[in-house]
This record gives sequence, structure tokens and C-alpha cells, in this order.
Amino acid sequence: ALYNCNGLPFSFYVQFQSLDYDNIENQLFLEEERRMSYLGFRCLEISRWVVCGWIGFLTGLIACFIDIAVEELAGFKYQVVKENIEKFTEVGGLSISLLLWAVLNAAIVMVGAIIVAYFEPIAAGSGIPQIKCYLNGIKIPRVVRLKTLVVKVCGVICSVVGGLAVGKEGPMIHSGAVVAAGVSQGRSTSLKKDFKIFEYFRRDTEKRDFVSAGAAAGVSAAFGAPVGGVLFSLEEGASFWNQMLTWRIFFASMISTFTLNFFLSIYHKNTGDLSSPGLINFGRFEGDSVAYNLYEIPLFILMGAIGGLLGALFNILNYWLTIFRIRYVHRPCLQVMEAMLVAAVTATVSFTMIYFSNDCQPLGPEHAEEYPLQVDSQTHATLTPNTGNKAKTSEVLLFCADGEYNSMATAFFNTPERSVRSLFHNQAGTYNPLTLGLFTLTYFFLACWTYGLAVSAGVFIPSLLIGAAWGRLFGILLAYITPNSAAKWADPGKYALIGAAAQLGGIVRMTLSLTVIMVEATGNVTYGFPIMLVLMTAKIVGDYIVEGLYDIHIKLQSVPFLHWEAPATSHWLTAREVMSSPVTCLNRIEKVGTIVDTLSNTSTKHNGFPVVVQPAKLCGLILRSQLIVLLKHKVFVELARSRLTHRKLQLKDFRDAYPRFPPIQSIHVSQDERECMMDLTEFMNPTPYTVPQETSLPRVFKLFRALGLRHLVVVDDENRVVGLVTRKDLARYHLGKHGLEELQLAQT
Amino acid sequence: ALYNCNGLPFSFYVQFQSLDYDNIENQLFLEEERRMSYLGFRCLEISRWVVCGWIGFLTGLIACFIDIAVEELAGFKYQVVKENIEKFTEVGGLSISLLLWAVLNAAIVMVGAIIVAYFEPIAAGSGIPQIKCYLNGIKIPRVVRLKTLVVKVCGVICSVVGGLAVGKEGPMIHSGAVVAAGVSQGRSTSLKKDFKIFEYFRRDTEKRDFVSAGAAAGVSAAFGAPVGGVLFSLEEGASFWNQMLTWRIFFASMISTFTLNFFLSIYHKNTGDLSSPGLINFGRFEGDSVAYNLYEIPLFILMGAIGGLLGALFNILNYWLTIFRIRYVHRPCLQVMEAMLVAAVTATVSFTMIYFSNDCQPLGPEHAEEYPLQVDSQTHATLTPNTGNKAKTSEVLLFCADGEYNSMATAFFNTPERSVRSLFHNQAGTYNPLTLGLFTLTYFFLACWTYGLAVSAGVFIPSLLIGAAWGRLFGILLAYITPNSAAKWADPGKYALIGAAAQLGGIVRMTLSLTVIMVEATGNVTYGFPIMLVLMTAKIVGDYIVEGLYDIHIKLQSVPFLHWEAPATSHWLTAREVMSSPVTCLNRIEKVGTIVDTLSNTSTKHNGFPVVVQPAKLCGLILRSQLIVLLKHKVFVELARSRLTHRKLQLKDFRDAYPRFPPIQSIHVSQDERECMMDLTEFMNPTPYTVPQETSLPRVFKLFRALGLRHLVVVDDENRVVGLVTRKDLARYHLGKHGLEELQLAQT
Repeated sequence: ALYNCNGLPFSFYVQFQSLDYDNIENQLFLEEERRMSYLGFRCLEISRWVVCGWIGFLTGLIACFIDIAVEELAGFKYQVVKENIEKFTEVGGLSISLLLWAVLNAAIVMVGAIIVAYFEPIAAGSGIPQIKCYLNGIKIPRVVRLKTLVVKVCGVICSVVGGLAVGKEGPMIHSGAVVAAGVSQGRSTSLKKDFKIFEYFRRDTEKRDFVSAGAAAGVSAAFGAPVGGVLFSLEEGASFWNQMLTWRIFFASMISTFTLNFFLSIYHKNTGDLSSPGLINFGRFEGDSVAYNLYEIPLFILMGAIGGLLGALFNILNYWLTIFRIRYVHRPCLQVMEAMLVAAVTATVSFTMIYFSNDCQPLGPEHAEEYPLQVDSQTHATLTPNTGNKAKTSEVLLFCADGEYNSMATAFFNTPERSVRSLFHNQAGTYNPLTLGLFTLTYFFLACWTYGLAVSAGVFIPSLLIGAAWGRLFGILLAYITPNSAAKWADPGKYALIGAAAQLGGIVRMTLSLTVIMVEATGNVTYGFPIMLVLMTAKIVGDYIVEGLYDIHIKLQSVPFLHWEAPATSHWLTAREVMSSPVTCLNRIEKVGTIVDTLSNTSTKHNGFPVVVQPAKLCGLILRSQLIVLLKHKVFVELARSRLTHRKLQLKDFRDAYPRFPPIQSIHVSQDERECMMDLTEFMNPTPYTVPQETSLPRVFKLFRALGLRHLVVVDDENRVVGLVTRKDLARYHLGKHGLEELQLAQT
Repeated sequence: ALYNCNGLPFSFYVQFQSLDYDNIENQLFLEEERRMSYLGFRCLEISRWVVCGWIGFLTGLIACFIDIAVEELAGFKYQVVKENIEKFTEVGGLSISLLLWAVLNAAIVMVGAIIVAYFEPIAAGSGIPQIKCYLNGIKIPRVVRLKTLVVKVCGVICSVVGGLAVGKEGPMIHSGAVVAAGVSQGRSTSLKKDFKIFEYFRRDTEKRDFVSAGAAAGVSAAFGAPVGGVLFSLEEGASFWNQMLTWRIFFASMISTFTLNFFLSIYHKNTGDLSSPGLINFGRFEGDSVAYNLYEIPLFILMGAIGGLLGALFNILNYWLTIFRIRYVHRPCLQVMEAMLVAAVTATVSFTMIYFSNDCQPLGPEHAEEYPLQVDSQTHATLTPNTGNKAKTSEVLLFCADGEYNSMATAFFNTPERSVRSLFHNQAGTYNPLTLGLFTLTYFFLACWTYGLAVSAGVFIPSLLIGAAWGRLFGILLAYITPNSAAKWADPGKYALIGAAAQLGGIVRMTLSLTVIMVEATGNVTYGFPIMLVLMTAKIVGDYIVEGLYDIHIKLQSVPFLHWEAPATSHWLTAREVMSSPVTCLNRIEKVGTIVDTLSNTSTKHNGFPVVVQPAKLCGLILRSQLIVLLKHKVFVELARSRLTHRKLQLKDFRDAYPRFPPIQSIHVSQDERECMMDLTEFMNPTPYTVPQETSLPRVFKLFRALGLRHLVVVDDENRVVGLVTRKDLARYHLGKHGLEELQLAQT
């Protein structure tokens, strides 16, 4: 029950914190920087590269582990099922086979759902909405912890092996981000282990940079798309573009693909073959010199529109489902049961459809061949004993005569990745239109039901599969309509690719990065232009109806998400209207009691406090976390005077406490100490960014967003504090149907 | 003679202006924005897309025009030469052929050099340094004018047809930028034509966004690399990453590649074949399932280091040459003569080397085949009459027996693009090591001599060619060293690719965007990782010795170029030390005479003036250009009172004057008018960004860079103006060998 939804009976507010992308340039920090030599900065720079290398390496390893685990476990599962089907078919009970199949799937999914629902609910879903929020600057509790990573990895293996309509690609992005957050800090709070390295990186600014690299490495490993990964990170996270940072992100992405590639090549026993990147590979589109023609472009755009509509439908259905889940399925045991139910239904539906569809296609010699790309040697594509040496083909021979295969089973029983590839590359005539239509329909609803379950799972591959199915259907129908020019439309695989792009674009509404990911996954620049057009159309059509899937889920959590620009029609708003006021200010030399009371005030729960000298003139800004460290170390003026040998507080003390600063309640301050004074001069940021009251909202927004601020002080023309702008103040303005609207948001 | 170099006798200072990426949010602007409906903003957004579409389309057309013109003219030239060689060879005078060849080339180059040197010197070179500066925020005079475009396009055609060691790719980037600047403004000042459209876009902020798109479209057309184009623009220009902007840039890039593709396919008579993007195409690397092995990676890194060294050598030689040119070759007529000399020498050297090298290779059947990529039907690869139906092969049969071809001639007489492709893809054994070595050596010096001539020409393709030659040589030598494992090293083409990347990286030192450009031009993601490693190594090694070629040329012009971050060791500097002070301030209601005097003061030549109310309290910022428009329209308090019907000054008046505001000298202000008052309230930006005096340089730098500012006001704690930070103040700090150094820069 992570969601909190305004107006929903069981909702509750999560207290979202913001990340602080602005360096706290206080005296301690400046002294450290000034002491540091040029060589010191070089070393730091080199350690950043080393950290990025490690992030890429570990993310690649995790992707490799997931891939191999899924393959081995799925192989084992199919082996068990196959033996039992053989046994039971003799007894005559097909229903027993079905039951066995459904129960086995449900049991595997149960394991995955239990660890997610009971141990780490944040690991549910693809994790992309959470990473989007993190990169946007919102600290979501527990999102980058080691425990989350472990649950996520085990969970995704269970979901995929359990036969749900899910992909293992989305969770890779989350995994990469967790790896990055862990490696860059040089310690694990979960394991209580501090390696005493990379202490310089223990602040939000540096950590977020590394998390960007981790997310990119995740995308890169998932799709073999290092450039796509970089663009994903930038699209979601970057506010200020930094060349060296981008280059490091790219480095992490490349290392990640390379690592995955290398270890998979060892696993597949052709060590050193580095030409097949990514967990999913769409295979090469080539052959024809004429890839597509100008007159096909309107058709592509039409497909984009269809994708936008179907995507919007998917999102609306999933939105209702999510609301339902928030209201009625919020207890862990119910969530586990729902996941099991979905697994059982998925198994039953596919089994039934395979049985009743008699779409048996002849197994021609071309099907025995492999596509010119790496093929995993998994055996679970073969369910009948008479496949023998055909174990590597992706056609499934279920319920068909010898020399034929069941094309519905091919679509349903393969791993989704392999089904997508079949739809892209199998020759014309491989699939019956009716089969494709039925498959699209059932898989659409299954995927929609599955997303949002308490299991770790991605929506990328199911979306691609739905799109590829109806795209191929579209291509086949086109060939029917124009029979005399059939040769031109001979390649339904092309339409499957476009359909896949349209459907995925319609659901997630990503733009640039998705185009690049698709292009890199096909390994071919040729289709770049149509894919871009299709994604644009899908986004325009879809956005007209409802937001993207990730945005819906972000909105349901009332996260104060900052978009790229202020709403267009917000120029009439100024900082004066937007800011929170009055502001709790602290004096430069403040009584400890006042500070404790301010921090303990649960009704305000501010995180940043302008520091003033009388009368109300701004002279700095100090954060709650800093004050807490100061209180903990009792940095009081009186004590410093009495104990001259008292160790001076250093930046290290703040870094050690980062990021889990203790709550104010845990810090004991005696009645005597309350009367002491604290001098904040050394610790506050003496030069916070400020704006005058008359500044327009877009201007405030731009400053806030470009610099990744958490607090922006509003001053009058005498430099007196009059207000404070935080993320919440800016995120609540939103362009709705009736012009500018104010949203209700969770507190920050 | 654009250069101005400190300490050089003939140097002179060019007054560089900065671009203003910060919106002037004055009352006029805010009123307009507030009046505009949501629909209005939608229309604006749509026109931005339309403009980007046009930018892409026109850039693609220009690329297409250049390509076709080069092909036709080169074909014609070779035809003429061929006939004459046949005629003269009978007479017996090979030297006459040589003479004819050299004279013809020199004549063609002369035309190109004359238009550049006499009509538009800014069109010399590749234009990439200029576009880098523009995107960085520096207004270089005449860089985005229509005249520049015309000269550039004609110039590059002449240089390539004249047989210089140049490429036509670099100038495309400049061309794209000019197209963008022209289209987005909806008028041409050169043609004195105003279409009265896109008036909203007539300010630096919008224009620079479009120029980014244009540069990206140029890269995209040149290399068939739309993603590389986007990344190039971002790497060079972006300060604040904006999702919609990036997406539009990508759109322009895609349209550009698509247009080029489409029209070239018509020209090559296979209309609708859209699978061969870009002016240069490296061809497909495939075939082997094992692309490269892990143990080759150290070799690649070694090649990267060699590339870095050779690149640094190239840059140093070119630096000396440029200094020499600034000193002694600054008159247009000398420049034209130098260009002609280079053309004649290039022709002579290549002719001689072909004649004396007896590297005749058998013309096997595999050479008669074409690479699986688009091939231009140009005929200038055939110099002997007995080629007949082999007209399309890229081998040149000069001075060899029938059935053989001259491999030195192949390397020298092809267009550089085609030579690069031969080096990448021809089978092992096609080239003699000695030939390659000699070719590398001569071409290296020729290319180095050529860059910086007063002709339009790019350095990308020559660099690639040098690198491909020594890379292939490296591959061949490797095969010699390890004869028993020859099969593994069998593909010298792979090493040619890596060598090309290393050499180009060593010269230009681009990173992310260059990797992506190379990957897109090869159409293959497989080599992404080695290319990235090689580019990184080349950059590290090269940067240790000397800067990149473009940076050298930028530095020679003393341009106040802002890098991504402040120098690492600059934390001890604060705004107080950095700022210019005292500042010329204006009162909110100021005497016209004071304003005129301030603007006329040639010793200061400030462009931005803080507006204050007594005593010195900051209340706004106004630009020179605004004041000039105000003076021109005589917006004086007294006149407004007397003539009530006086038309109120509107934003349109500022837009009409943009970007060529008249100088103050051209505005006549009578002695009476000097006594009038001007009210700046309505026109000044009332909320300029400010920083306190104690702000550290990195913090000032970050604010300045992230928001693309031109003026940043430094205030004390009473909000009184104490200084002004401009681009020049920040750009002069530089991390040298002895720590932080201050540079001498041209005024801004």
C-alpha cells in the first residue's frame, strides 16, 4: 500500500523528501575545496570514472544473472511439465496437464509476490516510475537500498519463470540505479559495512549523478542500447547538462552492455563473441534493399494513431484497476493471492486458446534455421517429445501433427522476448490472422491486469508483444487488401516492428530515448525515421486522452513531480503568489531550544531554514539535516568556550550521517542545553539563490529546475526574507482542461 | 584575417558580443504573455515544429545539392582530363598530363578561394569552431548570414572538386546553422525580405534553440547520424536540457537525413530506397559472427594512444601554420595564391607517388562487385579507357596492365569518402603496406597544410582517411607478426575503422557525439565499445600534449569561450574578485543625455546596465540594444505627455530591430532632447538574477552557464549594485600548468 490518493478511503500521505542538487557551499566545504590540490581534484575525477566502471560492470552482471537464472529455471520447469504431460496424456486427462501447469505457475509467482508484498513493497512493478521520481529530485523512501535490489532481482525471476505477461527489462533500470547508489557511497547501511572510500560522494549532488549512470547502465543492459540509456537518463533526470557527466554515464552504459555480452557469450559457449548486446535483441532487419517506401509513411502514421488509442485504453483500464487495488487489495496477503490468481488465469487462458485454435502450420525448412543472431539454448519452447534436434527452433509443436507446429502456442508459450522476435522476423504466412487477433486481444487484457501486481515486472516487453501482434496483423490485412501488389507488402515483420513501437509509445509516452532504444535494439538506423514518426503520433494521440502509464502511477502517489517547464499560461503568477509564507527563519546565533522546537514542530516539518541577522536580513540557509548533526554533536557556543580541546566539527561528520539522518525525536537535549546558543555561521550556506517577489513563475521555475534546487528564498528589495519556494509550491500548478489548475500534493 | 592573437604583430581585436539566452521579462513581454491564450501557446509550439521541419528539409536539400554538384563537376573534370591524357600520352608527355591536372585543380580551387577570401572570410574552414562559439553563446559577426551560406556551399564544392585533401561534411554543420537562423526569423536581412512570420522567435533565446537544431540537422545530413547530430548540438551548446527542445532537434535531424536520402535516391534512379543515409556512409561491418575479441581491446587502446599522438602532432603543426598565416598570409590575394599552391602541390604529389609506386594488384572478381551500400554513379574513378563496364568499381587502373589496378591511385584519386570505404572494406591483401605507409605520410602533411586555408572545407574526412590508412597498416603488420594465427587478424578493415576513430578523436577531441556519429555511420552498434575506448584514449593522450584542433582555433581568436565548469581549484575566488567594478548604472528615470553619453563611451562599451533607484538599490537591468530602440523611437517622458496620441512602443519594435541594432552614432539626439527624461520601468528586466559578493566562482559559473546569462549583477546585503559579472570575467580563468591562470581575452 504505497499509494496515497486524494479522496480514496484508504489513502495516506507519504512524506516525500526532495533531493538537494545544489551544493551546500558553507565554510567547511569551501575550506576543504580550497585545501584540495589540483592533484586531489584529478584523483576525485578518476574515482568518479572508476565508480562508473563498477556500476556498469555490476549492472551487467546482474542482468546476466537474471537472464541465466530465468533460462535455467524455465528450462527446468518445462522439463517437469513435459514429463508429466506425457504421463497424464496416456491416462487421458488433458485437464490434469492444465491444472499442473496452472498450479506450478501460481506457486512460482507466489514466491515472487510474497517477497515483494511482505519484505519490500517498493520493489513492485518495473521501478521506472520510482527512478523517474528519483532523477527528478524526489527522495522516495527505500528506493535505492540493497534489500530492494535483492527483492527486485528475485522477484523478477519468479514473475518471468511463472509465465506472467511481463518482461525482465524494466526492473533492470531500477537495479542499475540501486547498484549505483550503493557503489558510489562506498558502504552499505543494510549490511552495516563502511569501506571508508568515496566519502566525498556522500551527498545528494554526487549520488544523483551516479544514479543517472546506473539507470543508463540498466537500460543499456536491458536493450543493448548504451546511447538509448544515456538519453533515458538525460530525458528523465538531467537538469543541467554536463559534458563530463554525460560521458561518464555513457561509459557506464557501454561497460554494462559489454559485461552482459561477455558473460552471456561464455554461458552460451562461444566466448568472446561480443556482437549480441542486451537482454532483448530484435534481430537484424535487412535483406531487402528497399526498406520502406515513401507511400508507406501515412500507413505508419495511422499505426501510430492506433497505438496511441490502444495505449490510452491500456492506461485507462490500468488506472481503474490501480484505484480498485488501492481501495480493496491493500493487504499483503490479498496482493499475493491476486498475483497467484493472475498467474493461474494466464496459464489457463493460454492453454485453452492453444487447444481450441487449430492453427497448425507446416514446419518448413526455413523454420528449422536460426535467425542470424544469438539464440539462447533454452529448451522450454519444445513441449512434445518429437522435436528432437529441433530443440532450438522457436516454434512450438503442441497439439499438432508431426511436421507441423501450433502458431498460437508459438505466440503464447515462448518467452515474450522470443515471441517478439518471431513476430518481427518470421516469414509471411507463418501466422494466421485469426490467431494473431485473438492473441492480441487476450494478451492485451492479461498484460493490463498484470501491471501493478505486487510482483517485480516490466511492461516494456508485453507492450512490444501486443504491438507486434497487431502490427503484423495490420501488415497481413494490407497484403489481403492489395493482392496484386502483394510483393510490396510481403514483409509483415516490418509492420510488426512499427506496431510494437506504436503500442509501446502509446503506453509509456517516451520519445527521444525510446526511438533510440528501438533503433539500437534493431541494430539498424534505417527504421529510425518511421519509428520516430510513429512514436510522435502515438504520443500526440495518447496524450489527448490520458497521460502515460508511468505518469499515471506517479500522479496516483501525489508526488511533487516537476516537469520541464512551467505551464505556458502561468506568466501572470509571481513568486509572491507561489511562495510559502511566512517562513520560519533562524538567527545566525540561535538558542538551542528554539532550534529544537522548530525542528520538532510536526505541523510544519520544514527542511530548510533561512538564516537571518536582525532585522530579517537574509544571510544564509541551513538544512534540517545539518541542524540535526549539529545538535547531535552538541556544537554549542558555550561548550566550545569551556572545552577548548573540543574537536571541531568536520564535513566528515555530516557525510557519515548521510543519508539517514536521525529524527529530531531521537536526539536528547537537556533543559540546560536548551539555554545554550548555536552559531550557524560556519555551517549555513552563506549564498543561497534568491529571487525578488516580482519574479514570474516561469522564471522561478527555470532557476529552480536548471539548478536542481530544493529551496529558493524570496526576498524583498531590502534583502529581507519574505518567503520560500519549494518543489511542492511549483509542482502544484498544472495545465488542465480549464486552464491553470492547482493540484493537491503530498507534503515535501 | 579574422584571427586576433595576443602578441602577434598583425592582430586586431574583434568585438565579440554575447548572446542573451535569458529572456528579458520586462512589462511589455509579460503583458504579451499574459494576453496570450492557451491556444496561442499551442500555435507557437506548432510553429516551432514547423520551423524545425523546414530546417531539416532545407539542410537536407543543401547537402543533396552539394553532393550532386560535386559528383557532376568532378565527373566532368575527369572526363576532360581523361581525354587530354589520352591525347598527350600519344605525344609522349606525361609531364603535360601532370601539368594539365595541376593547373585544372588549381583553377577550380582558385574560384573557391576567391569567393571566400574576398567576399566572406568567415566562410573559411569547416565552420565548426564558429558554430561551437555560437552555441556557447558568442555572437560571431556574420556567421549565420545568407551570404555566408552561399559562399560556404560554393566554396566547399570548389575545394572538393579541386582535389584538395578536404571533406564536405564539416561545412554541412555550418550550413545547417545558417539555414536555421534564416528560417526561424521568417526574414532575410541580406535579401531585404520580411515574411512577417515567426516574429515571436526574433530574440536570442529562440534563435539559439533553432540554430542548435540546424547544426544537428547538418551533422545528421553529413553522416546519416540523427542521434549523433542531437548529441553534437547538446555537447556543444546545451546549457539547460529541455525535453521538448531536444525532441524538436531530433525531428529536424531526422527530416534532414530523410530528405537527403530521398532526393539522392531519385538522383541515383532508385527512387524510394531510403536505406542509405548521409553524405558519407562507412558501409556495413558484418560477416563474421565474432566481431572482435577481448584480447584485441589492448590493441585498440594502443591504437587510441597512437591516434592521440598523431592528432596532437597534427594540431601542433597546424597551430604553427596558423600563426604563420596570421603573420604573413593575411591579405586576400596571398590567401588565394596559397590555396592554389596547395592544390597544385596536392595534384603533383599524388601524381608522382602513383607513378613511382608500382603497387599493381590483380583485379579479382570480388573487386568488380559493389559493397552492399549505395554507390554514387560517379565516373571519376576511372582514368583509363579500358575500364568499360567496371566504371562503378572504386579501383583505379592507372599505370597498370589490364586486369590489374594501382592501389596507390585507388587511395589517392578516389573521393576521400570512397577511399575511406575502400580501406574499411576491401579484402585483406588489397593494399601493399609500403603504399599505405607512404600514403599516410603524404596525406597527413597535405591535410595539415590544407586546414586553415581560405577555402570552405572540413577536416573530418581527411582525418578519417589518415587514420584508416595507418589503421589498416597496423592490422596488416599484426597479421605479419602473428602468422600462425593469421585467420584471426584476417580483417584489416576492422583496424582501419579503429584507426580512423583514433585519428579523428586525436584531432578534434570530441567524445560522446563522435562515438555515436561513428556508430551510426557504420550502422552497427557492435563496434560502439571499442570506438568509445579508442576515442577516450585518444582524448586523454592528446589533451596531455595540446588542445583539440577546434579549441586551438577558438583560442587563437581570443573568444571568451565558457567551458562546462569552473576550473576545479577556483573555490577561493568569489564574485567580489571576479566581477567588473565599478558598474555604470542608470536611474529608473534617467536623463536622455546621460544615456547617450553612456552608450557613446567607447572606452567601456558595456552592453548591459543595472537600473537603480537611489541610493544604488538594484531594481532592474536594461540592455544597450533596448536603449537604442528607445532612443530611436524617442520614448521620452516629456514627449509622451505632450503627444497623448503617441503610439506606445511595443515588443514588435524591438523584434523588428533584432538582431542588427543600429550603432549609437547613427541615432541623432538634439540638444533639447538631451534634457528630456526617459522612464525605463516598462522596458527593463525588473528581476535580473543576482548573487551576493561572497558567492564562490564555481557557484557563479554554474548559475551563469546553466541559465545562459549575459549579465549577472553582484549585490551587497542591502541589495545595492556592487559589480557585474559578464562572460569575459568568467572565461578568463583557466587551469594551466601552474594552477589557475588568467587569460587575456577580447572584449565582450
